[in-house]
Amino acid sequence: MKKSAFPLAKVYGLLEPGPVVLVSTAHKGKTNIMTMSWHTMMEFEPPLVGCVISGRNASFDMLRKSRECVINIPTQELAKQVVGIGNCSGREIDKFARFGLTPVTASQVRAPLIGECYASLECRVADTRLVNRYNFFILEVVQAWADTAIKHPQTLHHRGKGVFSVAGETVKLRSRMK
Amino acid sequence: MKKSAFPLAKVYGLLEPGPVVLVSTAHKGKTNIMTMSWHTMMEFEPPLVGCVISGRNASFDMLRKSRECVINIPTQELAKQVVGIGNCSGREIDKFARFGLTPVTASQVRAPLIGECYASLECRVADTRLVNRYNFFILEVVQAWADTAIKHPQTLHHRGKGVFSVAGETVKLRSRMK
Repeated sequence: MKKSAFPLAKVYGLLEPGPVVLVSTAHKGKTNIMTMSWHTMMEFEPPLVGCVISGRNASFDMLRKSRECVINIPTQELAKQVVGIGNCSGREIDKFARFGLTPVTASQVRAPLIGECYASLECRVADTRLVNRYNFFILEVVQAWADTAIKHPQTLHHRGKGVFSVAGETVKLRSRMK
Repeated sequence: MKKSAFPLAKVYGLLEPGPVVLVSTAHKGKTNIMTMSWHTMMEFEPPLVGCVISGRNASFDMLRKSRECVINIPTQELAKQVVGIGNCSGREIDKFARFGLTPVTASQVRAPLIGECYASLECRVADTRLVNRYNFFILEVVQAWADTAIKHPQTLHHRGKGVFSVAGETVKLRSRMK
């Protein structure tokens, strides 16, 4: 994917539709990737994203210690990798190697972007006060990248147990909503 | 819609794909509806939902005071109502009347279900500690309803400014993920 710098003010439009995402992390020379669907926008600009990362995931410790990650948005071409990444643990394997994904150096965080995803959001942990109770992290997006040639990204929306809806038809209505 | 009681353990599968929802509230004999996209699942069972409701919305006060609401999930037939509801204020009008929607008595909360939505989740406020800082409410779903005849609901996913993706094709992969 040919990603270029993407305005922070427009980041909400990438996550608000609710796509499954791949979260990449790096810590002490190791990288990891996890599949995540439990996220929400919390502020337009600077963009804040709230997300649940279970303590059972190796990524939980990577994120807590490094305080950085990248939220990568895949399209349906990557469905098998999305499910495969969700079904194994980074404690045992190198997920970039196993799933043939390309780590790309980020500009502001040590976690790598995933080259094959159409958008990538470099994030820093902004608030951890709900981590103990709910595993809920609040992240600030500090740099965004997207392939803007993709006008209607066929994102994946997880309905549970490996069943996804693919983003289909576009409906456009006059609105004063942001 | 012919909704019947829906298992709480399966609620996550309704919200995890990220559909735009209509939140109904009731307080002191008045009802209101707002359009919302900033929500995430936070726990499987009992189902917890985190959501941002701006203090500019009349629904913010309704929810804070009544501590109850219903999260209703519309499909694309209701796209015009979804946008219309997002573009006006319940301080001035009765949104059920204006948009021709049917208030249906809930079983456990005073807020009404919206008859025309294929699923409705009765909620109570469970945690308000991030309300002051982020307008972020954590809700517990106490009773769920869904029309299970609708196998592939054509939900709406907001990409900003009145542009939605409609849930399209279904992809099913073998997975051990919940």
